[in-house]
Amino acid sequence: MRILVLGAAGMVGRQLIEAIIADDTRLGDKVTEIDAFDVVKPAFDSQAGGITIACSAGNIADEATVRALVDKRPDMIFHLAAIVSGEAEAEFEKGYAINLDGTRYLLEAIRQQDGVYRPRLVFTSSIAVFGAPFEDPITDTFLSAPLTSYGAQKAIGELLLSDYSRKGFVDGVGIRLPTIVVRPGKPNKAASGFFSGIIREPLAGHEAILPVDDSVRHWVASPAAAVGFLLHAATMDTETLGARRCLTMPGLSITIGEMIEALREVAGNEAVALIRRVPDATIEKIVAGWPRDFDASRASDVGFVADNNFANIIRAHIADEAARNAAA
Amino acid sequence: MRILVLGAAGMVGRQLIEAIIADDTRLGDKVTEIDAFDVVKPAFDSQAGGITIACSAGNIADEATVRALVDKRPDMIFHLAAIVSGEAEAEFEKGYAINLDGTRYLLEAIRQQDGVYRPRLVFTSSIAVFGAPFEDPITDTFLSAPLTSYGAQKAIGELLLSDYSRKGFVDGVGIRLPTIVVRPGKPNKAASGFFSGIIREPLAGHEAILPVDDSVRHWVASPAAAVGFLLHAATMDTETLGARRCLTMPGLSITIGEMIEALREVAGNEAVALIRRVPDATIEKIVAGWPRDFDASRASDVGFVADNNFANIIRAHIADEAARNAAA
Repeated sequence: MRILVLGAAGMVGRQLIEAIIADDTRLGDKVTEIDAFDVVKPAFDSQAGGITIACSAGNIADEATVRALVDKRPDMIFHLAAIVSGEAEAEFEKGYAINLDGTRYLLEAIRQQDGVYRPRLVFTSSIAVFGAPFEDPITDTFLSAPLTSYGAQKAIGELLLSDYSRKGFVDGVGIRLPTIVVRPGKPNKAASGFFSGIIREPLAGHEAILPVDDSVRHWVASPAAAVGFLLHAATMDTETLGARRCLTMPGLSITIGEMIEALREVAGNEAVALIRRVPDATIEKIVAGWPRDFDASRASDVGFVADNNFANIIRAHIADEAARNAAA
Repeated sequence: MRILVLGAAGMVGRQLIEAIIADDTRLGDKVTEIDAFDVVKPAFDSQAGGITIACSAGNIADEATVRALVDKRPDMIFHLAAIVSGEAEAEFEKGYAINLDGTRYLLEAIRQQDGVYRPRLVFTSSIAVFGAPFEDPITDTFLSAPLTSYGAQKAIGELLLSDYSRKGFVDGVGIRLPTIVVRPGKPNKAASGFFSGIIREPLAGHEAILPVDDSVRHWVASPAAAVGFLLHAATMDTETLGARRCLTMPGLSITIGEMIEALREVAGNEAVALIRRVPDATIEKIVAGWPRDFDASRASDVGFVADNNFANIIRAHIADEAARNAAA
């Protein structure tokens, strides 16, 4: 089976490919080839186990690039590529070019094959499709009213995915990921970065800035849960979804205060002492517009499994970091 | 004030322009010029009262055509142009080209002016953005989950309109029109055509086919109410809408049986006797997927006014037909 991953150099894309390499039957049929594509060339060995991995770089806002990838007729496609929220807001044209046009080129390249080709396409959407004022919790029938261009582009991608699936051109599943915590690596510039930062940085012995109040509640999932969502979306029976191909993934609704107490439970007071509270009105305002809690019953009912414990997310992060350090 | 109407040859577009001609201060400032555009050349005199009307034909799926219209810097734009539901379902590429690309070209042509130009843009969306299963009644926070490509294209147009408005590129209002009853003119091929046909045809002394059960409930508005929605959307204070620029218009939720009784009240048993019941399983199935009832509080709260009585809709249709016949 041939797999195409768009956005393979990102955190979730990398971990997805690592999970497939670790178990090449995880997607059902044995995976023999992976096309790992991103705007920067993904860094995988060309062979891993019995899998041939072709890494390449390019821009999905270029229609011919997308068509060439689809012309190889992958059996399964993971579309994780996107301009993230902050950048899509700052660079309006770039956000639409990649997040909207890129997604549409992908769907069109699939549709314009022979009319028989109908791959499973897993599309990562986001809870950014929702905007305040919210119902609480947000249910599976709540409107998409995004407050960012990124959210609008993801919501449009969802509508396209459902329509192309309804017409039989593709077998799509869209999954709205919670905020991923704990993200490994360096701090990034996302307004949501502090959710990971207040765990990751103290565990590494570094100070972390907390710009919002301890009472702030958010919807999070671990990297492992996110990879689990992708694998399940790739293999589930899509008949159960009907015409609504996109779902809010189950997550943990947790406050900053509860996250800090979980850090204390796992790593003690010394770690917690490295969190420095520096209230930032701008970030507080952004975060106030974000969803806090969902009733993600539809996804749970069709087998998506959430994290159940934030302390375990922290422990998994520590184990992952140890493995990464051992490999490096 | 210069007005641009895209879709000016359609029923609603024509009646909108007639309403503006009848009262050239209806949109606030005095209207001096109207660009009436459609895929077929609209049939207005070049002068009407003090208004100069320029009629032209073209395809909004052509970016340069749209740009040329916007380059005239209309103060107000009504975007009513669309491939209708049945055609967009049968002709996938054409539906996306006109309903999605055309709308996006319009928004981009506005955005790419000088950065100061920010016209009011009234966009006609549709209750086709909703798909079964529904909540009953459908409230203003219910998700868009269309079951047609037309509905998906309209829902995407709504997301674009809200995002471009949020960014300050345009001052948009999207209005989801109910099914318009009584449509004048010849029967059309829309699956919803019988809702008008069972009133219009008997009033003209012709037989009408009723393909669904008398118990079928639907959400309707008169042509006059639709024009009223457009005029209100053009002149309302959009600050009250916040980031959610699109609204379900208020309508009448009425069953076929109630419509027939209203026809009996206005035109007697002879008219009702011209309705012939010929159940059509295909149409019954399509109609079963349509919304039946809404709680359109948001729109009512900001001043959109619905019809309140179906017999009065029939009487207005009779008066309009008499006026058209006198003019012809």
